[in-house]
Amino acid sequence: MPVNKPKIVVLGAGYGGLMTVTRLTKQLGTNDADITLVNKHNYHYETTWLHEASAGTLHHDRCRYQIKDVINSSRVNFVQATVESIDKEAKKVVTSDGELSYDYLVVALGAVPETFGIAGLKEYAFSISNINSARQLREHIELQFATYNTEAEKRPERLTIVVGGAGFTGIEFLGELGNRVPELCKEYDIDQKDVRIICVEAAPTALPGFDPELIDYAMNYLQGKGVEFKIGTAIKECTSEGIIVGKDDDTEEIKAETVVWAAGVRGNPIVEAAGFENMRGRVKVSPDLRVPENDDVFIIGDCSLIINEEINRPYPPTAQIAMQQGETVAKNLAALVKGGSLESFKPDIKGTVASLGEHDAVGVAFGKKLQGTKASAMKKIIDNRSLFMVGGPGLVLKKGKFKFF
Amino acid sequence: MPVNKPKIVVLGAGYGGLMTVTRLTKQLGTNDADITLVNKHNYHYETTWLHEASAGTLHHDRCRYQIKDVINSSRVNFVQATVESIDKEAKKVVTSDGELSYDYLVVALGAVPETFGIAGLKEYAFSISNINSARQLREHIELQFATYNTEAEKRPERLTIVVGGAGFTGIEFLGELGNRVPELCKEYDIDQKDVRIICVEAAPTALPGFDPELIDYAMNYLQGKGVEFKIGTAIKECTSEGIIVGKDDDTEEIKAETVVWAAGVRGNPIVEAAGFENMRGRVKVSPDLRVPENDDVFIIGDCSLIINEEINRPYPPTAQIAMQQGETVAKNLAALVKGGSLESFKPDIKGTVASLGEHDAVGVAFGKKLQGTKASAMKKIIDNRSLFMVGGPGLVLKKGKFKFF
Repeated sequence: MPVNKPKIVVLGAGYGGLMTVTRLTKQLGTNDADITLVNKHNYHYETTWLHEASAGTLHHDRCRYQIKDVINSSRVNFVQATVESIDKEAKKVVTSDGELSYDYLVVALGAVPETFGIAGLKEYAFSISNINSARQLREHIELQFATYNTEAEKRPERLTIVVGGAGFTGIEFLGELGNRVPELCKEYDIDQKDVRIICVEAAPTALPGFDPELIDYAMNYLQGKGVEFKIGTAIKECTSEGIIVGKDDDTEEIKAETVVWAAGVRGNPIVEAAGFENMRGRVKVSPDLRVPENDDVFIIGDCSLIINEEINRPYPPTAQIAMQQGETVAKNLAALVKGGSLESFKPDIKGTVASLGEHDAVGVAFGKKLQGTKASAMKKIIDNRSLFMVGGPGLVLKKGKFKFF
Repeated sequence: MPVNKPKIVVLGAGYGGLMTVTRLTKQLGTNDADITLVNKHNYHYETTWLHEASAGTLHHDRCRYQIKDVINSSRVNFVQATVESIDKEAKKVVTSDGELSYDYLVVALGAVPETFGIAGLKEYAFSISNINSARQLREHIELQFATYNTEAEKRPERLTIVVGGAGFTGIEFLGELGNRVPELCKEYDIDQKDVRIICVEAAPTALPGFDPELIDYAMNYLQGKGVEFKIGTAIKECTSEGIIVGKDDDTEEIKAETVVWAAGVRGNPIVEAAGFENMRGRVKVSPDLRVPENDDVFIIGDCSLIINEEINRPYPPTAQIAMQQGETVAKNLAALVKGGSLESFKPDIKGTVASLGEHDAVGVAFGKKLQGTKASAMKKIIDNRSLFMVGGPGLVLKKGKFKFF
C-alpha cells in the first residue's frame, strides 16, 4: 500500500476550482494523490448567470447544481465548510469544519464586490454575488412592487431601481430587468410609466473595452426598454433612501428603494490575510499559475492576476479564463506529483458576449462582432459550454439553456 | 321615453354588492331604473380566499375576477372610483371620480381590520384584507426567508411569524402557512426547525363558536405542522421588532419580522362618518335591510348588523350572509321601484367550514360536524358556490377550486 500520498487541497468550487478537480481525477490515478475540495455550499453556481436569478427571469435552482453530481466522489474528498484562513508557512487551511493540511494548495475562492470605499454601499446596496444575494435581490424588488399599491400615498422610490455600474454585470442585469419589469407591473397592477430604472456609471462609457458600435446598440436597446443612463456620473454615497451622485457641492439625490452595486469585484480577502503579495485580493501569479514565493500554492480565477501582454493590462477576471486555468493547474499538479515539466498558462479568449435579456446580446466571438439574435444564440452556447466542460452532455441536458419546442 | 327613472347606486362590489347588482338586473327591466355600481378596483375579490393568497399557496389572480365579466354592462353603469363620503340628507355619494346622486342607495363597503386600540398594530402588522395587502404579505414573508441566509449572523426573527388571532381567518391562514413554510424552506435552503409560527389569541379558546371536538382537531392538526399556540394571551403592543404579550408588568417580547393581525374586523369608517347610528361601523338594520331612519338606504354585508335571535347575539359577518342579503335587497328594491311589499331578511346558515390548508378542514355543514378530507371537500364546494351564485357555471369553471386530474 502506498504511503505518504501528496495531499492536494482545492479551495472553492467555482469555475476554476471545479474544473481543477474534475480534470485532476482524470490526470491522476487513485494512488497518486489525496484530493480534497472545500466549498461553503454543497452546490456550484454559475456566477455568470446570477444577473438572471437576481432579476427573477431565471430560477436560482437553474443556476446551480450539486457538486456531488459532477465530481468523482470515490476520488475526491468533498468538505462542505467555509474557508477561514490559510497558513502558508504551516501549509494548513483553517475551515469552519476544522483544519486541513496540504502539500499542494489551489486557491480558487473567487471574488467579492469592490465598493471603492463609497460610503453606505456595503450597508444599503444589493449585489449580484451568489445564490443567496441573487434571490434576496429578486425578492426585495418584488416586495417593492407588491407594496406600492398598498400605500395610500404612492411612493415613486418603491419603483425606482438604481444600478451602479454599466460594465458587463450591470448591463446584463439591466437587460433582464427590461424583461422582468413588465411582468412585475402586470402582477401587481402597476402602470409601467411609474417605474424608473437608472444606470449610473462613473467611467466615460458603458461596457468599457467593447466596440463603440456594440455599446451604442446595447444602450439604445436598453433605453428602448425604459433604462435611463447617467454615464460619467459617480455615486458619492448610498443611503437608506437611495444614492447621492455628483461631485463636491454639485450633488443630486436619487431616491430609490433598490440600489444594486454591479460596478466591480476584487479578490477574496482571505488571500490578502494569508500574506500573499496582492493587489485588491488578486495575486500576480507565475506563468505556471503558482505564487512566485510559494511554489506549493496555485492561485486561479478571480483571485489571480495575469497580464495581457498585448496591451500590458490585466485580463479581466472571467469564467472563461478561470476554467482554462483549472485545466492548466490540473496538468501542472500532475507534473509535480508524477514528475514532468510545468506548462505556462496562455488564455485563449474565444469571445465575450454580454446578454441584453433573453433574446438579445452584443459581443465578439471568434473575432467577429455580433448583435441581436445571433449574439443571443452565441451567448447561450457560451453558457452551455461551461456546463459541458465541467459536467459533460448530461449536465447540459439538465441545466442548459435551450428550448425543446 | 321614460323620464325620471329612479337612480339606484350600489357601493362596493364585494359579495353583497355584486350579488345585489346581478340579481337586480334580473328583477328590473331596462326602463325601471338606472343602476350604478361603484368600486375601487375593476375586479371583485374573494375575501374568504385571501388567507391563501397571503400565504402564497394560491395566486392572487385566482382570487379575483373582472367585474365587467359578471355584470350586464348594458344595464349597469360601472364606476371605478373610491367612495369618499355619503351625504344622506342631500342623497349624494362623493367619490374620487366625482359625485353621484341617488334615489336608493345600497351600502356594501365591507370591513376594515379592527385593532382594538392596540398600539403599533396599524403601523407594523400586516393584514389579510384585500388583494393588495395579501400579496404584500406573501412577498414580505418570502423576502424574510430569502434574506435569512445572506446574513453572517443568523437572525431567528426573520423566520418567526406571529399570527394575532385564532379565529376563522387566523386559523385558515395558519393552515396555509403549514403547507407554505416547507416550500419556502426548500426554496431558500433553510432547515424547517429554524422556523417558528406562533398564534396568539386573547380569548380563552381558538375558533370561538366551534364545537370543542373540532377545535381540538384543528389545533392538533396545526401543532403537527409546527404551529405554537398561546391561547388566552393578549397582544399588548406591536413594535417594529415584534410583539409584546401579557399584562401589566408580566410581559414578554416575541421578536418577529412578520406579525399578521387577523383578530377581527369592523365596518367601514365611511358608514360612521355618514352619521348612521352604528357600532364599530356596523349599522343595525331593519328586517328589510334598510337603515331605520333612512328608508332609501340599504346596508348589507360587513357594514350591517343583524341579530341572531336564538342566542340574542349578532351574526358574525360572513360572505354567506352578505350574498343572501344581496338577494333580498334586489327583491326589495324591485318592490320599491315597481310597487309591492318588502320582505324580511332571514339568514339561512348552511354551514361554516374553516380550512386547514388544501387538504384538511373542520366545520359544520347542513347540521353535521365534519373534519378531515370530507370537511375539505365541503369547503371547496362552499368556495365554488359563491362563484356560481354570482357568475354561474362559467365563472366556476374559470376560477373554481377543483382538479381535473
